[in-house]
Amino acid sequence: MPGSSFGQAFRVTTAGESHGPGNVVIVDGCPPGLALSEEDLRPDLARRKPGQSVLTTQRMESDEPEILSGVYEGRTTGTPIAILVRNTDQRSKDYASIAEVYRPGHADYTYDAKYGFRDPRGGGRSSARETVARVAAGAIAKKLIHEAFGGRVIAYVKQVGDVVAKIDDPASVTLAQVETLPDGSPNLVRCPDPDAAARMVSLIDEVRRDLDSIGGVSEIVATNVPAGLGEPVFDKLRADLGKALFSLPAVLGVEFGSGFASARMRGSAHNDVFLAAARETSPPDVPTLRTASNRHGGMLGGISSGMPIVMRAAIKPTSSLAREQDTADVHGRAATLRTKGRHDPCLLPRFPPIGEAMVAIVLADHWLRWTGSRRVSSST
Amino acid sequence: MPGSSFGQAFRVTTAGESHGPGNVVIVDGCPPGLALSEEDLRPDLARRKPGQSVLTTQRMESDEPEILSGVYEGRTTGTPIAILVRNTDQRSKDYASIAEVYRPGHADYTYDAKYGFRDPRGGGRSSARETVARVAAGAIAKKLIHEAFGGRVIAYVKQVGDVVAKIDDPASVTLAQVETLPDGSPNLVRCPDPDAAARMVSLIDEVRRDLDSIGGVSEIVATNVPAGLGEPVFDKLRADLGKALFSLPAVLGVEFGSGFASARMRGSAHNDVFLAAARETSPPDVPTLRTASNRHGGMLGGISSGMPIVMRAAIKPTSSLAREQDTADVHGRAATLRTKGRHDPCLLPRFPPIGEAMVAIVLADHWLRWTGSRRVSSST
Amino acid sequence: MPGSSFGQAFRVTTAGESHGPGNVVIVDGCPPGLALSEEDLRPDLARRKPGQSVLTTQRMESDEPEILSGVYEGRTTGTPIAILVRNTDQRSKDYASIAEVYRPGHADYTYDAKYGFRDPRGGGRSSARETVARVAAGAIAKKLIHEAFGGRVIAYVKQVGDVVAKIDDPASVTLAQVETLPDGSPNLVRCPDPDAAARMVSLIDEVRRDLDSIGGVSEIVATNVPAGLGEPVFDKLRADLGKALFSLPAVLGVEFGSGFASARMRGSAHNDVFLAAARETSPPDVPTLRTASNRHGGMLGGISSGMPIVMRAAIKPTSSLAREQDTADVHGRAATLRTKGRHDPCLLPRFPPIGEAMVAIVLADHWLRWTGSRRVSSST
Amino acid sequence: MPGSSFGQAFRVTTAGESHGPGNVVIVDGCPPGLALSEEDLRPDLARRKPGQSVLTTQRMESDEPEILSGVYEGRTTGTPIAILVRNTDQRSKDYASIAEVYRPGHADYTYDAKYGFRDPRGGGRSSARETVARVAAGAIAKKLIHEAFGGRVIAYVKQVGDVVAKIDDPASVTLAQVETLPDGSPNLVRCPDPDAAARMVSLIDEVRRDLDSIGGVSEIVATNVPAGLGEPVFDKLRADLGKALFSLPAVLGVEFGSGFASARMRGSAHNDVFLAAARETSPPDVPTLRTASNRHGGMLGGISSGMPIVMRAAIKPTSSLAREQDTADVHGRAATLRTKGRHDPCLLPRFPPIGEAMVAIVLADHWLRWTGSRRVSSST
Repeated sequence: MPGSSFGQAFRVTTAGESHGPGNVVIVDGCPPGLALSEEDLRPDLARRKPGQSVLTTQRMESDEPEILSGVYEGRTTGTPIAILVRNTDQRSKDYASIAEVYRPGHADYTYDAKYGFRDPRGGGRSSARETVARVAAGAIAKKLIHEAFGGRVIAYVKQVGDVVAKIDDPASVTLAQVETLPDGSPNLVRCPDPDAAARMVSLIDEVRRDLDSIGGVSEIVATNVPAGLGEPVFDKLRADLGKALFSLPAVLGVEFGSGFASARMRGSAHNDVFLAAARETSPPDVPTLRTASNRHGGMLGGISSGMPIVMRAAIKPTSSLAREQDTADVHGRAATLRTKGRHDPCLLPRFPPIGEAMVAIVLADHWLRWTGSRRVSSST
Repeated sequence: MPGSSFGQAFRVTTAGESHGPGNVVIVDGCPPGLALSEEDLRPDLARRKPGQSVLTTQRMESDEPEILSGVYEGRTTGTPIAILVRNTDQRSKDYASIAEVYRPGHADYTYDAKYGFRDPRGGGRSSARETVARVAAGAIAKKLIHEAFGGRVIAYVKQVGDVVAKIDDPASVTLAQVETLPDGSPNLVRCPDPDAAARMVSLIDEVRRDLDSIGGVSEIVATNVPAGLGEPVFDKLRADLGKALFSLPAVLGVEFGSGFASARMRGSAHNDVFLAAARETSPPDVPTLRTASNRHGGMLGGISSGMPIVMRAAIKPTSSLAREQDTADVHGRAATLRTKGRHDPCLLPRFPPIGEAMVAIVLADHWLRWTGSRRVSSST
Repeated sequence: MPGSSFGQAFRVTTAGESHGPGNVVIVDGCPPGLALSEEDLRPDLARRKPGQSVLTTQRMESDEPEILSGVYEGRTTGTPIAILVRNTDQRSKDYASIAEVYRPGHADYTYDAKYGFRDPRGGGRSSARETVARVAAGAIAKKLIHEAFGGRVIAYVKQVGDVVAKIDDPASVTLAQVETLPDGSPNLVRCPDPDAAARMVSLIDEVRRDLDSIGGVSEIVATNVPAGLGEPVFDKLRADLGKALFSLPAVLGVEFGSGFASARMRGSAHNDVFLAAARETSPPDVPTLRTASNRHGGMLGGISSGMPIVMRAAIKPTSSLAREQDTADVHGRAATLRTKGRHDPCLLPRFPPIGEAMVAIVLADHWLRWTGSRRVSSST
Repeated sequence: MPGSSFGQAFRVTTAGESHGPGNVVIVDGCPPGLALSEEDLRPDLARRKPGQSVLTTQRMESDEPEILSGVYEGRTTGTPIAILVRNTDQRSKDYASIAEVYRPGHADYTYDAKYGFRDPRGGGRSSARETVARVAAGAIAKKLIHEAFGGRVIAYVKQVGDVVAKIDDPASVTLAQVETLPDGSPNLVRCPDPDAAARMVSLIDEVRRDLDSIGGVSEIVATNVPAGLGEPVFDKLRADLGKALFSLPAVLGVEFGSGFASARMRGSAHNDVFLAAARETSPPDVPTLRTASNRHGGMLGGISSGMPIVMRAAIKPTSSLAREQDTADVHGRAATLRTKGRHDPCLLPRFPPIGEAMVAIVLADHWLRWTGSRRVSSST
């Protein structure tokens, strides 16, 4: 019952701390025959990397992955793929002071309560550093679902503080829009609405100079997902996607399709109408249907409907603040704290590759649960 | 990789369809020695039961549970507890027409896409009828967490349509407030704010007469949960609670603590300050801390903090409508549909026992997962 | 981490005690479309049933199964199949005396050590009565593997005491030979060598009259299993089959192919030579090979080779004896005991349907792990 | 459903091939506070290491472990422990010829049948090289069970070919006897009966010079295991130990206690008599009992009895032979093969640390599974 594994058929197991030797992930269950090398892992690792701009932490990590197993002559063999990403820029002394003081909003206290013992360097296992392993695994999942069914997962920043992006059609947002502004410069905040992006950058920079932090919302969209993924009852696709996103640091809310807005709606306005199919079928063939709208968010009864899967994650403001905060220490005494370690003033800009990774892992997992390890291998 | 089991140490497996012979649940992992009889299961089953009032479906079910194993002389033995709840009021002919037509918002189409085949009677396995098994298991979980650590889980209706209840302190809401109005009459809508409750009843009744349905939000609170429950990374308590709630029918959003509101907040306003403990400790003892506020919702780093766990689930309006809707049939042809089966105009009034059950199951599971690792750690 | 579930893709969960209301099994993961009714379960339940002859326990059970879910209009729907077999002939008073005394060779003491508490009636959960649930699940697994790949599993009695059957080719033994003697009478001991069968019957009867019991060996053969089933490393097909057989009551040894005899052999005599295929292939096609002999028992590297899978289970003599035995009681005091409950003087005659069930479940599970839930459904 | 993880509460996940960059293991679930460094891993890794003597393969590996996570200031933190052992002496060209020819007794053909693709270098994932990861994990498990309950696991060579060691009391064999001969020289064959050891060495050397190989039996004994470990029904301790041993390369038979010999015995001669306890108890206390003999092998009903757990594994002769063998190639054509890679003429001398590792992992796992349910049960 330890909790470092995720997925059943595409099974990801991670290990590693913020300031230990490195982070490791073992991906078990990737079908054989998928072309794979370190080159496939680098782009998303670079998108997640610290030190990208003034908006993110100044920790510098090369985040260079080493594939240790499971690949032969450039193709997966079906055996587990182990990847090692070494930590290089650990300044543990930054954290010496916090070994004795519980940082508000962090897991220092709860780890002590659970284990009676903790690695205080950079938050140890509770650091968002562990997501580097998820992103490496997610890059494999993305390749797999693309080869298996043309699946694509894109995440972007929808909201920072009160700045909300205007996105007409989540399913048509492109990676280029997320990564690059119309003028060709990097989209530092990864919001595909350029006007909102500019205001978000200003807001984050203002917050940073205030020695404060700010929250936001990321929207994640999976397209080309065939109808039929997910299990009834407990392992609904929605349930596993929800777990995947809530397993990420700082996520306090998740919604699909109309989400919380559905609470105010009537069924007659909420139900998405099935459209007649292009071609009639007769049982046992099942028609391929679309709906006129997508308030259901791409899943019905917990099983994918073939429409885009649209979800949003609410991310709290970074808990580490460079300003002084009241708190308690490991003896239970009142204390004050000013975080000296490096940290992001807003977690949103670096969130998209992480959110995409978890969604891709869930889709790969449910695809393989449905079709088996052999079927996909034969299609590659 | 089928999906009919939930939990690892307190493991719940369910089976059953809306209109089959009955629903079964096997609870594996309940510790020995817990006093248990059918009498312990009846109260929550009665709260979930259809036909309670004009606000709910008119299907009549006795929902009488039979314990088939795992209990000897009134106490659990540690072996699996099987419970059978027979279906009695199945009017399958009500559903004969929908075998050929896909109901908007329902899982008919996605089940066909997944399985190529489905039991159309009352939605089969996709019917909310399956939650009867969860509620039976949840009643055991509630007893267990109460005996183990005094834990208590209460859910209530926070919002129906635009009617939002005013709840000053979620952690102080009582079961009596949820079930009974100040005048002693049944609280049909299970909202502990009596004024809001009255308006919710009016709204649901109006919607029902309009042959329509309405959504809402339920708030769920777990109190007396000790700090230390949950696993780092993938099996965060928040992640498993999120999965548990998203596995329930019609849930499109879940949030903890400040939830989506955190997206608009700054860290300096969001962080909950740790208060000095009543008594100083020295390592390896860990102080028992509280926070001055509870925007974090009772979990930090995915591990319980000892503060009340507060969460909300957004529930879409019932998809079944007694009015005519456009849709497509199993041949992919355009069709119209008017649901003749019995259904609830709003899912909220019957949701609280179901939401409580899932939360209690997660807490029981993580408690049992933890006491294992803790015991040994304390001996080393 | 309770232990009442088995398998991953074809997942069997059981509950029930010897003298409780009944035994339940939930089979989760059976693909949709398989024809199934109670009629499919009865033959193997009848083969396992007590009271078949003077060689078996005189407990009388109808062992009538009721399918509670997962089947619609005679076909599986892909949702979990729950089956209930009620207990009818519980004479709990037979066991009243043993609540206070630990039976040698039984689990009374170890259950007390584990749980501090136990259901003493007929051994409770430790009784071989629980295998009734396995046999029901196994009957489904047998149908599935037969439809999926023509798979067949046959078990028979190879040895009782010193009487060893002569079986030239395990893969050619038929169910008819196991169940019926050449003269058309029932093969009470289920040994396909009629001469040995007669001597086994005499031996068991002699032992029974001596108020004693006797052990034996059952051989189990799976044929038509395609090459490729099983996972490398921990979930080798051999490992899961070994676990399946060792999970059965009274099994103290398991071997595959040459088994313990291989310890005395040289590699040059042990290796099975691959024979040239009937037809040459070019990669990526893989030839279909056979071996000239089958000392490897149908698996290489833990993965099926396409040759018959041959295994043997050693079963200890029944621990219940109608004669007086020395032992200790629940206070730790010396005591004597004479079992008054009904029991089998030899477990072998009723073992074949139980061993077959477990082997079929493992094969169904590994088949679905390999091919997915969808693939098989499309072939039925 | 991939198969590279083992255990539930003490969960071991491995990755790595014979001739890839290295082997990795992640141990998830080790409780916090256990003193641990690379130094704890080296002794068993050295016992497993190739190139120890003329009796073993001449491949030279330093087998130096690097702990990458889960340890802080010399103690485990409760988070996953990742260990990397790099491969250093891969001579892949030795295996170039066998990419095209299926080695008899090896997994080359079955991997191709399963995956359609394989890493042929040294057998890839099917090589016994993967056991290096198990031994590293096993060293942690050994420390844990020793700290938790004084548990100890010792394996030794019981038989090679026709040479059978005389061991009066398996539970009293010491590591020193297994590793060192009475004259102080290394016990190359790890048989604690010095006379038998000498004859085994001669036999293996003779076989090696014959360009042949030989099988054998290892006996494994776990002592100081408290009564109560194991789960009823599917996850019997016996079943999980059986799976653990059958998951090891070349194991064709496993038996516990009297094992296959029990098939010839009567119950009156087989049952182990419970002895009166040293001290009387009253319920709910359970007496601590011993049995006068140990034919049951330390488990009753699949749950540990407190007596030594005694098991034996039959290991087939090495399939790789330096002499010419007939076989088929990847096109299905007849071929001949002479293994040029380095290999052991007998697998037994290096087996003990591997067998011990798997047994210790199972005991650690069941201990952690149990202490969870026991703690709560004692509090109710």
